[in-house]
Amino acid sequence: MKIEVCYTPDLIHQFDLKGKVVVVIDVLRATSCIVAGLNSGIERIKPIASVEECRALGDKGYMMAGERGGIKIEGFDLGNSPFDYMQPQLKGEKIATTTTNGTKAISLSSDAADQVLIGAFLNLTSVIKTLEKQNKDIILFCAGWKGKYNLEDSLFAGAVCEGLIKSATFNDDATISALYLYKSMSHDLHYYINRSNHAARLSGFGIMKDIEYCSRIDEFSKVPYLNKEKELQI
Amino acid sequence: MKIEVCYTPDLIHQFDLKGKVVVVIDVLRATSCIVAGLNSGIERIKPIASVEECRALGDKGYMMAGERGGIKIEGFDLGNSPFDYMQPQLKGEKIATTTTNGTKAISLSSDAADQVLIGAFLNLTSVIKTLEKQNKDIILFCAGWKGKYNLEDSLFAGAVCEGLIKSATFNDDATISALYLYKSMSHDLHYYINRSNHAARLSGFGIMKDIEYCSRIDEFSKVPYLNKEKELQI
Repeated sequence: MKIEVCYTPDLIHQFDLKGKVVVVIDVLRATSCIVAGLNSGIERIKPIASVEECRALGDKGYMMAGERGGIKIEGFDLGNSPFDYMQPQLKGEKIATTTTNGTKAISLSSDAADQVLIGAFLNLTSVIKTLEKQNKDIILFCAGWKGKYNLEDSLFAGAVCEGLIKSATFNDDATISALYLYKSMSHDLHYYINRSNHAARLSGFGIMKDIEYCSRIDEFSKVPYLNKEKELQI
Repeated sequence: MKIEVCYTPDLIHQFDLKGKVVVVIDVLRATSCIVAGLNSGIERIKPIASVEECRALGDKGYMMAGERGGIKIEGFDLGNSPFDYMQPQLKGEKIATTTTNGTKAISLSSDAADQVLIGAFLNLTSVIKTLEKQNKDIILFCAGWKGKYNLEDSLFAGAVCEGLIKSATFNDDATISALYLYKSMSHDLHYYINRSNHAARLSGFGIMKDIEYCSRIDEFSKVPYLNKEKELQI
């Protein structure tokens, strides 16, 4: 079981996804929302690349969710806050979602990978256990910010690496770096995530409680995966 | 004085080099060779993209240096070992060099950047002092391995960050990560560099002494820069 880390979508062309399990990571906030939403009763979440396609699904029984530049899209039912996704009235609903980084990373892996899983600190231990059980080669795919490296996704990749340190093979420089980065920051994750570029961007929108929530570990126990209809479920 | 880290040439399009000082980093081994060579008496080193162009300069008074896939190019005077570059008979010579990663990173920065400097552990403190004096925005440009992230170049970027921690502005996630990576590995640089992917590749060629040498700090005091003729000098 080999483990590799891809730090941004702009580097994914360097990786051979075939036959591998890809864990898509967008801690602030797409994958945190997906984990929170599906674990709270949403039936399916369909990741969509464009705002237009998402709107079109609004007429087909889906609720519309998403952001551009961190801000909820006009006319959409939900933004990109995990609290939006945990509303009790969403139980059993299907959501179509489009975000700046996370849905792009999902669509970049959906065709080639053997399986696409969704990871966030909110379901960290379950992600580790699922990967251990599957015993396949792994790519931890950080969604980044518009193609750029980001801290919070790399930290989550490092946390998964630490969890798999006895069961996986580590012979990739990016993987070793993510592991050591996590080791050096794990004593106060919320502090470091709060210092990240993306947290600074989001703080302008008054959503510090989202950042605090997305830094929490193991609030949920199930790992969303992409099914054959390219929808996320648990 | 803002400082940013670009982890690989495949990400350099995300950075605006205009008006900035770019430090090109290829610890194993191109920039270590350049630092060792120019500090040991070589007059000029001309970085060249292709083997053919390099050969053509062989007829114009340049000695030819370089590697492909870590191996010295057939018919060339020097390979890509710092020991090749420190031979006494090279004093006053001009060298044309082409390597897998380092010369590519230099050519990617040479047009847009205000200045291109060459960094390696061999001249770490001098790089830090030079950047402090110049007081301009900085991009630490890791040459990586065929576009991939690598450990040794990221570690050097982190070492420069640590040296500039009081004088530079750190508001970039990649920069913060490089800094923490270095903090977590600086107690035994040679050990970690020796564990890197590239060291593993090179070890097949029996050049462990190169890796040990390239992990040394401050063997030399001068910082090579790219002059108007696109040649490196000190």
